[in-house]
Parts: sequence; C-alpha cells; structure tokens
Amino acid sequence: MRTVFRGKHFISLDDWTKEELDTLLDVSYDLKRKFAMGIPTRYLQDKTVFLMFFEQSTRTRNSMEAGITQLGGHGNYLDSSTMQVAHGEVAKDTAVILSRFGHAIACRNCFWEIGNKYLNEMAKWSTVPIISLQCDLYHPMQAIADLMTMQEKLGNLERAKVSIIWAYATTHKKPISVPISQALLFPRYGMDVTLAYPEGYDLPDWVIGKTEENAKRGGGSFRITHDMEDAYRNADVVYPKNWGSWVTNQSTEVVDELLQSYKVWKCTEKMMQLASKKVLYMHALPADRGNEVEDSVIDGPHSVVYDEAENRLHTAKAVMALTMGGR
Amino acid sequence: MRTVFRGKHFISLDDWTKEELDTLLDVSYDLKRKFAMGIPTRYLQDKTVFLMFFEQSTRTRNSMEAGITQLGGHGNYLDSSTMQVAHGEVAKDTAVILSRFGHAIACRNCFWEIGNKYLNEMAKWSTVPIISLQCDLYHPMQAIADLMTMQEKLGNLERAKVSIIWAYATTHKKPISVPISQALLFPRYGMDVTLAYPEGYDLPDWVIGKTEENAKRGGGSFRITHDMEDAYRNADVVYPKNWGSWVTNQSTEVVDELLQSYKVWKCTEKMMQLASKKVLYMHALPADRGNEVEDSVIDGPHSVVYDEAENRLHTAKAVMALTMGGR
Amino acid sequence: MRTVFRGKHFISLDDWTKEELDTLLDVSYDLKRKFAMGIPTRYLQDKTVFLMFFEQSTRTRNSMEAGITQLGGHGNYLDSSTMQVAHGEVAKDTAVILSRFGHAIACRNCFWEIGNKYLNEMAKWSTVPIISLQCDLYHPMQAIADLMTMQEKLGNLERAKVSIIWAYATTHKKPISVPISQALLFPRYGMDVTLAYPEGYDLPDWVIGKTEENAKRGGGSFRITHDMEDAYRNADVVYPKNWGSWVTNQSTEVVDELLQSYKVWKCTEKMMQLASKKVLYMHALPADRGNEVEDSVIDGPHSVVYDEAENRLHTAKAVMALTMGGR
Repeated sequence: MRTVFRGKHFISLDDWTKEELDTLLDVSYDLKRKFAMGIPTRYLQDKTVFLMFFEQSTRTRNSMEAGITQLGGHGNYLDSSTMQVAHGEVAKDTAVILSRFGHAIACRNCFWEIGNKYLNEMAKWSTVPIISLQCDLYHPMQAIADLMTMQEKLGNLERAKVSIIWAYATTHKKPISVPISQALLFPRYGMDVTLAYPEGYDLPDWVIGKTEENAKRGGGSFRITHDMEDAYRNADVVYPKNWGSWVTNQSTEVVDELLQSYKVWKCTEKMMQLASKKVLYMHALPADRGNEVEDSVIDGPHSVVYDEAENRLHTAKAVMALTMGGR
Repeated sequence: MRTVFRGKHFISLDDWTKEELDTLLDVSYDLKRKFAMGIPTRYLQDKTVFLMFFEQSTRTRNSMEAGITQLGGHGNYLDSSTMQVAHGEVAKDTAVILSRFGHAIACRNCFWEIGNKYLNEMAKWSTVPIISLQCDLYHPMQAIADLMTMQEKLGNLERAKVSIIWAYATTHKKPISVPISQALLFPRYGMDVTLAYPEGYDLPDWVIGKTEENAKRGGGSFRITHDMEDAYRNADVVYPKNWGSWVTNQSTEVVDELLQSYKVWKCTEKMMQLASKKVLYMHALPADRGNEVEDSVIDGPHSVVYDEAENRLHTAKAVMALTMGGR
Repeated sequence: MRTVFRGKHFISLDDWTKEELDTLLDVSYDLKRKFAMGIPTRYLQDKTVFLMFFEQSTRTRNSMEAGITQLGGHGNYLDSSTMQVAHGEVAKDTAVILSRFGHAIACRNCFWEIGNKYLNEMAKWSTVPIISLQCDLYHPMQAIADLMTMQEKLGNLERAKVSIIWAYATTHKKPISVPISQALLFPRYGMDVTLAYPEGYDLPDWVIGKTEENAKRGGGSFRITHDMEDAYRNADVVYPKNWGSWVTNQSTEVVDELLQSYKVWKCTEKMMQLASKKVLYMHALPADRGNEVEDSVIDGPHSVVYDEAENRLHTAKAVMALTMGGR
C-alpha cells in the first residue's frame, strides 16, 4: 500500500485509515523527540499555512503558529476582523485564491450547521489541504492529541476503559465536536468507550451508528449511560467536559433551565475515587474550574492536561508536515 | 542605463519608467515560474516589511504576507487597532522609526484626500521603500497584476481594446484608485483604452490630462464614453467595476439617489455578447455578485479573475524583491 | 564568574547584575553593527517568542517582531482579542502551555497592582524566559535602550547629570514604570540623577529607598526636587515625560484637577537653555506634542529620540539572543 499524504484534507479522522493515523502518530513522536533535542525540522521551509479563525483560540492558534515556525514555514493568522468573508466573499473565492498564494488552509468555524459545510465547500475548490481547527461537528486536532497522550501514558490501548463524560459549565455553549471526534476515534483503537451525559445532551443519531460500526471493526466497544457514577467506575481514563444541547436546541444562549438542572455533573475527588487507581484525568482546556472540575482534581496527580496540551503541538506539526510536504 | 531599484518607492506607477515596469514584470514571471517549481527564492532572508492596514483586505494582505515568506522574510501585520496613529503618532515618527527597525513600509490608506498624502509624507522621511497597498488615488499593485494577466492571455498588448467600465454595487463606497491606475497605465503599453461611466462618476481632470499624455507617448489611445454598450462593443478586455462619486461628493455614504439610478450598469451575458469572441472578463475581487456582474459571467469561460488574483502574489513579490533587495 | 543567561527572566533590571547588564549592552552593540552591515544573525532559528499585549504598542511590538525575525525566529503576536485570559485562563495555564510550545513569553501588562504580579506568576510556572514588555512597575526594555543611547552619545556616564522630569500630558494616564526603571538603573552606572515632579506624583517609597542604595553602590547620586528649573539647570540629559499619580490615586481617569494645575511642566526652549550646552533631550515616544514638549525641542538639535527608539530594536534583540539562546 502506498499512501499519498500531500494535499490530503484533515476535516474528519474518519476520512483517514487507521494505517494513515498510525503514520501521523509516528511522525508526531518523531517531531516531539527532535523538538526536545533541538534538531531542526525545516520540512516546510518558506511555506504558508493560512490560519482562519472565526472564533477565538489559544491552544490551537499557538500550536499551529509555533508549529509551522518550527517546520520552517509561516502561519498567516486571519481572524474575522481581517477576513472579507463578512463582505460577501464566498468560500469558493477564498479557497481558490488562498490555494494560489500558499500551501494549506487551516480553519476554525464552529457555527452550528455551517462550520463543517464551510470546510467541505472549501475542500471542493482548494488545490491545497484544508485542515480543520474545529468545526461544529469535528475537532480532529484535539482527538488525535488525546489519543497520543493516552498511548504515551497507557501503552497498548486495547480494552482500556475510557469515559467521555458531560460536565456542567457556564462559560459558553460549546460545540459537540470534541465528544463526537473522541467517540468516533477511540473504539477504532480497541478501547471500551462509555459516553455519559444527562438527558437532553444527545449526540446526533448518525454519530452513534458510526461509532458502533467503528467499535465493531476496531475491536473496541461503545455504550451510552446517563448515570455519571457508572461512567467513573473502574475507568482508566476520564474526560469530563461540557458540551451544548445543539441537537435538541440550536439557540446559542449559554445558560438555560436544562443546563441549570445538571450542576451535579462535576468531576470531583469523590467521583475520581470510583475510577481505576491510575486513572488519567484529561481535558482539552480551558476548563471551567469549579463547575466542570474541582481544582484539586485538575491540579492533582491524575491530571495529564498539560502533557495533553503539549501534544497539540506535536500532532499539529505532524498534520502539516504530512499534508503540506508529504510525497 | 542603470536603474537603482533598492529603496525606490512604489506609490504611483507613473513614478516608474516603462523600462522599470518591464523589469518588474520580468521578475514577476521569473518568481511565478520558480514558485510553480518549488525553487527557493530567499532573496530577502530575515528582512521585515511592515504591513500597515487602515482598511481591511484579503488579497492584498495575504499576497504580501505569503509573498514575503516565500522570499525568506517576514510581514509585520499592523491594523488600526495595533497602530498608535490614532493616538497622535505623526507620519514622520512612524516612517523614521519603522525605517530603523525594518526594510520596507507597505501601507493601505484609502481615506479621501488623506491616503496619498500620508504615503508621500512617509516617503519624505523614510530611509526604506514605501510600498502602496492602495490609497485614495492609486492602486499600483492591482494595476500591475492586471497588466501581467493581460500580457499572459493576449501576448502583445498594442492596439488591444480595453474597457474600464463603471458598475453598480452597494457594498461600500469604493476608492477611484483602481480605474485611475488602470487608465494611466494601460495606454503606456499601446492599448486602446475606453473609460465608460454614467454622469456623476468622473475621475479628476488631472487624471484625464495625464492619461492622454501617456497614450500619446505609449502609442495607445484613450477615450471616454457614457454609453455602456459602446464600451463593450468589440472589446478584447472588459473590466466592469464599481467606484464612488468622490470627485463630486465626498460623503462616505454608500447608497444615494445618483447610485440607485444606475442599476442597469451591470455586466451581463447580453453585454458580453457585444464584445470580441475571446473577450476577457476581469475584476479585482471581491465582486458584488448580482449587482456588478451576473454569476454566469464571473464564473463563466471568459472570466480570468482567479489568474488575475494569483498574479497579485507574483507582482507583489517582484516589487519587494526589487525595492527591498535590488542593487 | 560564569553566568547562565539561557532561561533568565527579564522583568526588572534589578534582577540582573551590572556585569550581566554590561554583557547585554555588549551584545546590543554587536547586533547593531551586524544589522548595519547586513550580516546574518540567525541565533534563534525557528524559535518562537510569544508576544502577549494587554495594551497597544508600536515601538515595543515592532522592535520585538522585527528583532526576532532578524534573529531567524518568529514572534507570535497575541492581543487581548486573541487571548483567552478574559475567559478565565489563569496565568499558570498560559505559562505552562506556552512554555511547552515555544521558547520565550514576552508580555505587556500595565494594569495597576496586577501587571507585575501577573508576570511574576508566569515566571513561577514557566520553563522558558518571561520577558517584560512593560508592567505597572517596570519598563526594563525602555531603560536599557535609554542607557545604551546615553553611552553612545556621552561615552563614560560617571558623574553625568541626568534629570528625569515629570511633564504634563492628557493622552492617557501613563504607568510609572519608565521613571521607576530609570531611577533604579542610572545611578548604578555612576550617574547623578535628579527626579523632578510636582506634589502628588510621588513614586513609591520602596523605589526611593532602593534607588538610594543603588546610587551608593554604583558611585552615582540621587535626589528629588519639586522645582522644575532646578532639574534643567546644567543637566547633561533631560527626560521630561508624563506619568500618572498612581501612588495616591488609582483611578484610571486621565485628566483631573491635580493634573490641570501643572500645565507649566512642559519642556520648552527656555527650559533647555538652562541645561548644559550639549544637553540631550530624550523621550520614549510617542510624545504628547504641545503638552509634554514644544515641537522645536523634540524636532531640534538636542533631540536624540529617533536614535533612542532605534536602540529599542538592538537591546530587545540582545535580550532575546541571551535569554532564549544563551548557554
């Protein structure tokens, strides 16, 4: 088998075979080692990746911009104030023209029922890779960094018990892209995945169907529970994180009655004691401290959030190195 | 003849001789070829061009920032929120200090009766080239990219019939810098230029005088018409694009009675049929689709708008390579 | 003695020994010479310095961004609209994560009683150098550039008479960080420093105590006067610049009765005639022309403000080269 990475879009991990993802992880480990040793990795010298952000970001923007610098290229940061999209520039025009100027178009667009369509519309016209930095449906950069972190900490992931757990938060109505990407990915690596959330926070039906398929093929398993304690019990990894009730309610209002009735969905020391002794606490950051999680957990011995954040750099570099420079 | 390009300002193409413009085009073609082949062109390694934008931009900013990256340097993007100009920093201070820090100052300032003066004031004090990214009077980057595109498509431009045609649009009151720069430039290359617009959208008298002079010296011709059909008839190139009624009305209001009475000035399939069979449709983008032009024209077989946009990259790189690095 | 510069924070010059500052100046002179000659100085190839700005800046941002480019690295510009600090990201998270991604964190945070604490909190957690770009208490980048400029103009600085003089301005309530950093630094180089200001604009008591100590050890002297003419008389260097009444009044309101009563504290030609014949007029820029200083002084023969501004580049590069790359 020969795989061509150059020009490959990175919008959903389901478009990448397991073998391709393994290569991506291999490259991530290699880049991490070289970065630690200060070995130059100018694989993309003088190449430009456009960084289009329709929403704010810290980790994603900085991992991409520092990452492309370490690869010898440049990240052209564009926020909504510096894009003419608002002035009627259509996705086609943006994609064709930026394709002519540079070497990849990375984009975050989380608007519900718009983001993923926008990325796919760009992919239709672009002659360079479209790299998702999160849309309304997927966050492949986060999921692959999570997977790398779990591999580093647990080694073989087969039969590892991973719980993706809804958590209470009030900062903003967050996309469902993180739990969707994790649910779709983790069973492919043989993990036993539990998705836990209170009534009203369902993921779309097609996600559940696809996840079950992925579990069957990958040797993992997938189940849903509405019992929080059940999700913590004996878990090797817990990922308690808020997401919005987009499937049933498309309003962007953050706090509503439904949300307020689930304040108890917080990651506490007490919950953590139900889990495996070596359980990993993970979070994409920034966490809503006090709501999603107690300080003593996120700052405690089970937390791997900073290692997880660091892996955002290495995996982002691997995505760029392969799709912008691969053969 | 020996020309020194290093340090030469790029504010109006009329300050560049035809021989100098020919060199600029030669360099553009060479950079385009090398970019297509992936040959490194680090002519400006570690050099900084400041990119001062008083107004938004997509094509201009991205062509400059990706372009300087491909030349091995860096574009220091400054928008009005990151400049202290609003806090009383005078053009002299900005020009002297940025001159000391970097290698060129590129600037877009389209405010009526301010922009061009601001650029010239900076040029008076700067020890590095001032590169216009559009002012109230000129848009040399656009005009030179247009010229390159016409050369690529038509070969010899002598006696080519080019029509610069006013078009209806409602997005914002656009500068007259594009039609002025084109009117001044195209006759220098021997083209027969028609400027067509409805009453009230005149360009300044001095532009007309200078354009006639340029036509005389360049072997081209220049005429004005207020009959749209006349401008399309037998044209080899049409450039239907909106501009504001700045000469007679300096208000920044977009839509007024005068504008509304000229909705018929739209580039339609019917108009295009009056032109030469191989007529080129050009536009600086973004177009006001449905107002300036029908979708079927801008997306149709005569349209060269994406090639034209791409040439913004190559010509911008040539301007920088010559003025920031030339001998 | 062996000094390790790599990883050293740059928050207050008092944390750097005089020998370390001398090395910093040596490196500044060397980088200035190489820049003038166009000799490459890629000491920080592909390294990232994060540039976090909670407040606007022209000189600081551009000197850092052009400077890191000249050193072969990249400045990752972050303003408050692109940081999630407002969304509850704590200094610890920012410091740890940016440390993992890049090679230094430079930050401007001038909020009263917050800025310096924020920098020190980051320094506690960061594994890379924290570089102050001005806080509520210190502006080490400005003070070291001022010192370099005085050395270039005056040679030996021992017994040079330097007057730091409060001046009237209405643009915004400025931090006291510039006079504090200058008062603490200049006596260490044997200068005779006069601090002049009208009642109500005192610097904190601990600054005065520490400055007297620094004067004793450095061989210089330090005195305070409320008589403006006295400060100008026979001075070799005058630094008339506004600062706010933070110590006695923490409101951010710019203009109040106290301020209005001191309009006479302006640097005029008449004042300059009291000083030494070769007196240097210095200012960090941007000056509040007409209020802080007469145009004829800042544009006149004694003014060295542009050379001073240029030295911001060379000293900033030296700080980065030493702390991000030093052995």
